[in-house]
Amino acid sequence: MPGVIEDNTIEIAIVGGGIIGLCLAAGLAKQDVTVKVYEQARGFREIGAGMAFTANAIRCMGLINPEIAIALRSGGSVATSLDKDDPNDYLRWIDGYNQRREDDPYYQKLMFKANAGPSGFEGTRRDQFLEALAKVIPGDIVEFRKRLDTIDEKDDGKLQLNFEDGTSAEANAVIGCDGIKSRVRELLFGANDPASYPHYTHKVAYRALVPMDKAIEVLGEYKAQNQHTHVGPHAHIIHYPVANQTLINVTAFVSDPNEWPDDKITVVPGFRKDLETVFAGWNPCLTALIKHFPEQPEKWAVFDTWDYPAPYYNKGTICLAGDAAHASSPHHGAGACCGIEDALCLFTLIKKVKTTLQKGIATKKEALTSAFEVYDGMRRTRSQWLVNSSRRVCDLFHQPEWGDERKWIKAETCFEEIGDRSYKIWYFNHNDMVEKTVQAYDKKYPTKDGAHENDGVTETKSTATTVSVAVAVN
Amino acid sequence: MPGVIEDNTIEIAIVGGGIIGLCLAAGLAKQDVTVKVYEQARGFREIGAGMAFTANAIRCMGLINPEIAIALRSGGSVATSLDKDDPNDYLRWIDGYNQRREDDPYYQKLMFKANAGPSGFEGTRRDQFLEALAKVIPGDIVEFRKRLDTIDEKDDGKLQLNFEDGTSAEANAVIGCDGIKSRVRELLFGANDPASYPHYTHKVAYRALVPMDKAIEVLGEYKAQNQHTHVGPHAHIIHYPVANQTLINVTAFVSDPNEWPDDKITVVPGFRKDLETVFAGWNPCLTALIKHFPEQPEKWAVFDTWDYPAPYYNKGTICLAGDAAHASSPHHGAGACCGIEDALCLFTLIKKVKTTLQKGIATKKEALTSAFEVYDGMRRTRSQWLVNSSRRVCDLFHQPEWGDERKWIKAETCFEEIGDRSYKIWYFNHNDMVEKTVQAYDKKYPTKDGAHENDGVTETKSTATTVSVAVAVN
Repeated sequence: MPGVIEDNTIEIAIVGGGIIGLCLAAGLAKQDVTVKVYEQARGFREIGAGMAFTANAIRCMGLINPEIAIALRSGGSVATSLDKDDPNDYLRWIDGYNQRREDDPYYQKLMFKANAGPSGFEGTRRDQFLEALAKVIPGDIVEFRKRLDTIDEKDDGKLQLNFEDGTSAEANAVIGCDGIKSRVRELLFGANDPASYPHYTHKVAYRALVPMDKAIEVLGEYKAQNQHTHVGPHAHIIHYPVANQTLINVTAFVSDPNEWPDDKITVVPGFRKDLETVFAGWNPCLTALIKHFPEQPEKWAVFDTWDYPAPYYNKGTICLAGDAAHASSPHHGAGACCGIEDALCLFTLIKKVKTTLQKGIATKKEALTSAFEVYDGMRRTRSQWLVNSSRRVCDLFHQPEWGDERKWIKAETCFEEIGDRSYKIWYFNHNDMVEKTVQAYDKKYPTKDGAHENDGVTETKSTATTVSVAVAVN
Repeated sequence: MPGVIEDNTIEIAIVGGGIIGLCLAAGLAKQDVTVKVYEQARGFREIGAGMAFTANAIRCMGLINPEIAIALRSGGSVATSLDKDDPNDYLRWIDGYNQRREDDPYYQKLMFKANAGPSGFEGTRRDQFLEALAKVIPGDIVEFRKRLDTIDEKDDGKLQLNFEDGTSAEANAVIGCDGIKSRVRELLFGANDPASYPHYTHKVAYRALVPMDKAIEVLGEYKAQNQHTHVGPHAHIIHYPVANQTLINVTAFVSDPNEWPDDKITVVPGFRKDLETVFAGWNPCLTALIKHFPEQPEKWAVFDTWDYPAPYYNKGTICLAGDAAHASSPHHGAGACCGIEDALCLFTLIKKVKTTLQKGIATKKEALTSAFEVYDGMRRTRSQWLVNSSRRVCDLFHQPEWGDERKWIKAETCFEEIGDRSYKIWYFNHNDMVEKTVQAYDKKYPTKDGAHENDGVTETKSTATTVSVAVAVN
């Protein structure tokens, strides 16, 4: 029996105003869902790091809200690797260490080229995208300086979020999009469970921005202007052009057998001379490139959730999405893309919950719990695979075999696997995910004649091409 | 300019009368190719081990010669795992070590089920298949007791095979199908190259045949009658029904950190008590199953070509196929299937060579070299991937994490990858391989107007449904 209109209002609290939280909010706000984003910072966190989205992730954004993809482009996204003679984007792995040609010591063998398709990767600056994204969202949705402390369940089934500043807020469901150091994850699993925290991947990263003219001097025009990953024993270097081809963003990843001393401080001052030691004897292109790093570049310890993955992504009406659920090392460049897939799945389900409530066949708590259980079933396996796969490909990039001439042929056989893993990310069938998500949810609330609802599919498809005119109810 | 008919006869020498060599011979003999198989044994090697073929590999056999698939079935192949309520074949991975239920110590959690499709796996005994296969091949094609010593190239471009018994034979091309200890591989790479020999995978296998009634007693009816892989720390056990469900074939694989003392002797007497030590503390189903092993079961050291893969699969008109090219550990159960794919690729190419010779646009040596180069390009990456993947999945089956309660969740995240790897093998697009093989060969001999020949595709497709009446010219 349908209740009064107020009873069907769904209030969603999103913890964390990063990419995933804002994308989801931008979608839900257009769907007559009351959504609030609670962000602990004073404003959108201005971490200027570059990030890239696959063509597929951008299509997922469009399904959540077409304005998100427009925001991405307005924030200045560009293809990270575009061969002038080919419309497709490629990732290229080249030999950083061995197999120079006698006639050309700067020669680097191209080992593998993976085709991401036309505009397969669009790189952007995180801060620029967040800024453009914020404009898509009604102004009163995001509340800053709200650091989550605890979540309580009230007698009426609603959740109460208690913030460190002593204030609180209520919602029917909480979605933790609060990143790798997620407080919501810690609340779900408890302070003593190692799954509550990320762990050290035993890789450190050093980053530099090198002016394009200097990059061309040391790498040559083609390598400087296109994404390349240089592989070798215990380390690799990845670079791609940014800022309208005026700079290249260079990251050197180095294996570290030791433990990381303090998981609260994961960025420390590093030293270029340490990098010079690691890359001594590598291809002269790279030893020259490293001279363009600052003398004291920042050194980032890479953490992820590989050692202790989350046993589940929801507990009742609380759930985790993006890095809060599955923090991956960056070696597939797809952590945020996977989070966007999460957001599309949750968006699809919350629309379905709306229909369930309109029919009056379940309470808000029941329907949202069902939705989050379906989300857990749809997303956990793939997203934890990504965490594993990112570790695995880095291990392959760093194979000690690159340092042993008798093992070069064996080492090179890794690229079939690297290709498979890349394609699994890039060519994910998100329409199939949406369809299966709807089917799984409908199984929980079958219609009387046994047929499943499929309006969710239709709705989702329609959002890809039309812009809803509904406004958020706050 | 077409030469006289004798000049277009292609003489192919296949070294090794195993599954791959005989399948290829059975195909070529129907295509007016003069083919000889030289086998070192006195007769078909009667190794009674069970082996399984994927539905896909059986389709490849049909494309080479429809009689091969008929021979397989006449040799008594049966689905290795057939749930009575489901027409599809599945592989099932279950928890061999942990997570018993308090109310049922024999409970084993089903962790993953991979669907191989209808009749996805057909198991057979190697000796029975070889026997049936031999009947497909004209009697004078196989010569026994011919152990290859050396291969010389003669002035006219032909190859001379010199056998240890002092005799010799000639052919336009030599295809080494002589298995994991291939002499042809050793001749290609030289006695000092580690790629000439297989190496120890650091796994040993113990095998037993257990009567079905005893198996049901310890495993229960469902597990006994269907294929299952039991995973745990440093070891796994796989079993499936054989001999019309009257027996189950059980193999226990155990990790071994040590080197194998003598690569000439890879089967030695083992002891059940060693197995009992390894599996102490595992699920009581398995400790009971191990009591049905003989007291001194054979212990097989598993070797493969992972450490030192072949840098190329052909040198001029000599090439390698099957285990001779890429010997895999058995953990995907797909080593022979991959060899059948090789055979289909070579079969396709040798038919193309016939056409080239009829047109008189290349010498036999040139055309066969081109064909084998195309074969190397089409097959090396995938088949070496299989060798790697088989090692990888065994490492995942043997994860030490199964032994650490805090790591169970992490350990279980491996199955998405195991599924991907299985599906890559089972759902290989062999028609696409044939098409690309023909295209790659045609690029080497373009027709005058620039169009590529594609009769190879048509021919290959037609062999799938019709039985050629051509007879072998010996």
